[in-house]
Amino acid sequence: MRGERTDRNGPFLASEALRLGLEPARIVIVGDNPDELAAAMAEGVRAEACLVSGGLGPTHDDRTVEMLARALGRGLDVDEELERRIEAVSRAAAERLKRPYADFQAGVTKQATIPDGAIPIGLAGTAPGLLVEHDGGKLVVVLPGPPSELRRLWPNALETDAFRALLARTQPPGRRVLRFFGVSESAVARALADAGGDGGGVEATICARDFEIHVDLVVDPGAEERAETLEAAMLPPIERWLYSRDERPIEEHVLALLRARGLSMATAESETGGLVAARLTSIPGASDAFVGSVVAYSNEVKEAALGVAAELLAEHGAVSAEVAEAMACGARERLGADVAIAVTGIAGPGGGTEEKPVGLVYLHAEGPEGGVARELTFPGDRESIRARSAVTALHLVRRLLTRTRDEAV
Amino acid sequence: MRGERTDRNGPFLASEALRLGLEPARIVIVGDNPDELAAAMAEGVRAEACLVSGGLGPTHDDRTVEMLARALGRGLDVDEELERRIEAVSRAAAERLKRPYADFQAGVTKQATIPDGAIPIGLAGTAPGLLVEHDGGKLVVVLPGPPSELRRLWPNALETDAFRALLARTQPPGRRVLRFFGVSESAVARALADAGGDGGGVEATICARDFEIHVDLVVDPGAEERAETLEAAMLPPIERWLYSRDERPIEEHVLALLRARGLSMATAESETGGLVAARLTSIPGASDAFVGSVVAYSNEVKEAALGVAAELLAEHGAVSAEVAEAMACGARERLGADVAIAVTGIAGPGGGTEEKPVGLVYLHAEGPEGGVARELTFPGDRESIRARSAVTALHLVRRLLTRTRDEAV
Repeated sequence: MRGERTDRNGPFLASEALRLGLEPARIVIVGDNPDELAAAMAEGVRAEACLVSGGLGPTHDDRTVEMLARALGRGLDVDEELERRIEAVSRAAAERLKRPYADFQAGVTKQATIPDGAIPIGLAGTAPGLLVEHDGGKLVVVLPGPPSELRRLWPNALETDAFRALLARTQPPGRRVLRFFGVSESAVARALADAGGDGGGVEATICARDFEIHVDLVVDPGAEERAETLEAAMLPPIERWLYSRDERPIEEHVLALLRARGLSMATAESETGGLVAARLTSIPGASDAFVGSVVAYSNEVKEAALGVAAELLAEHGAVSAEVAEAMACGARERLGADVAIAVTGIAGPGGGTEEKPVGLVYLHAEGPEGGVARELTFPGDRESIRARSAVTALHLVRRLLTRTRDEAV
Repeated sequence: MRGERTDRNGPFLASEALRLGLEPARIVIVGDNPDELAAAMAEGVRAEACLVSGGLGPTHDDRTVEMLARALGRGLDVDEELERRIEAVSRAAAERLKRPYADFQAGVTKQATIPDGAIPIGLAGTAPGLLVEHDGGKLVVVLPGPPSELRRLWPNALETDAFRALLARTQPPGRRVLRFFGVSESAVARALADAGGDGGGVEATICARDFEIHVDLVVDPGAEERAETLEAAMLPPIERWLYSRDERPIEEHVLALLRARGLSMATAESETGGLVAARLTSIPGASDAFVGSVVAYSNEVKEAALGVAAELLAEHGAVSAEVAEAMACGARERLGADVAIAVTGIAGPGGGTEEKPVGLVYLHAEGPEGGVARELTFPGDRESIRARSAVTALHLVRRLLTRTRDEAV
């Protein structure tokens, strides 16, 4: 590939590797250039497992199999059984396309030509997936490029004796997940360092995503106790910002909290333009708790669909704490929801003033026992201001739903 | 990264490189493992331009800058001017988060420590982008990991003298863009092949994305005539599905069509849960034409906020052509819009029946001169059914806005 397209195969294979106890060392994406391909293949076959996708087609610039044979120092030969199967697929295609089979003959022979000792693991169209064992138990798995075909043939690779033998030598790591919101990445890093840092079979990664801080502890077998101790030591200074010990996204937490309390929810969105609703409804079964939303982009819609008073808009402006509160209350009433979150702000790049700059956002969450409000100024471009507003809105609903009565939020 | 997340930076930088006449040789994704990182960096700096993203944070496992200095054989030093700027950002953050600045001090010094000769090209939060020139005109550009921050700092790199000097040695290819909707990828591929296919300095890529077919012709200097001929020869059988010769997303086309005709627009969404509104409002200045949306997830909201008759819901079900039409008309009336698009369907994984399977979607676009409707059954999982529904909804609005009077759509 030339690299400008999103790669879906790398992330799939990396997460499969992690799940199986294989540590992904690197993902390399190269185009059809033979030298680059040869270099990548030569590096790849040094690993315990090298997973290759694409370049299996019938044409001359599909060079994966040839390059693999060269990297392994093996010969190439036509596999006759494989050739018969590819020929059958090609004859059917020729008939369907009303073209002579002779057009396909060269491609069939090319695609049935595999490295000595390679095991076919199924066909994707006319392209065979392959598995090669080499150097005393190392593996190369060759898979088709189209993501759905790759996913279809991948389980066949796992079922080979050679892959089973490799997996018998791995020890899938444990994983501990900590998710924070409202605390800085550096404060979390410091808490981790003060607690002794990673090492000793525990690898920690800290990753900031739209103001959420995601901490993963990858735990080698035998290091569970070290992980337990590290977690216990790092948590006290930052525990009040901990919102999850699993990987569910915040919208799923919010829906679970609503269900647990038998509450329904709506959103009233201006600046986020439906993003909060779209995130909530991305979760299967959201309709249990989420009833709907008014995206009130214009002031007229704020008045007509949410009942925000024209005087309030005139006095405070659409981007104000007062209007956010009125939007939330309007959504509760008009959409018949127990809980509503309202978002109004300035996502930019235009529309900012000195008094109300780009990035200024007002949030208001209102529930049966009152409301909570936030004023924030987000950095970044339109896309990240909107994304951060949506995430912060969802966290504000979580806060509203988890506060104890009379607790300040 | 560990590789299990989708990489958005590689494709962006690869397409930027192609645009500038730099051929992407390889994309390498590595995690925090110092050996892998060092190996990748050592290989990378051999290229004319090595573009690095991520690993610039304040924590110990953000090792990009240290590894780069090692790969280039350069020392590392605190840049005092840079340190002052990072400190200012950190003090503001400390104040906002109500945390002592001391929490940030170590991170500030770490992030202000850069390889000798490196030029700061701007800050993403507290992380500096950097450009290093080495070995007589080769470049390394170090960019932040978050995609929006990377895109924000990237133009700064292009404006440096060193990058300008590199670009003076390249010959950017031309590019022709053709965007289709409603035709199959194989039909487009066949039209291209029948027209003579690529080659002769023209490289064609065909990419299917949520039912849009994106064709790019990359044209070497001198091959413009060949590209012109190829395009003219391939278009006739598929021209009726051509909707764009530029890269603007469909939501931007829809907003432009609305503005050109002085029309306002609203959405009424059930299955897409706000995705159509979120896509429209992702475009700066959407408020010129987009007024708002009702996300009517529950039947109660369909009745209360869109005026869909209870009898209609009872008789045809929420997922029906009749309810889609009523939702569109209700949105026009309740939100005061000239044009409305309604989406109702079953995104799954639950909720499907034999009669109304998962993937069944009804769309209805209604304008001042009448409406157009579609019934579709989309394959795929919840996420792709929702994404395809949203794209198809936007294309239906485009169709409504571009049809000539009395034309069937």
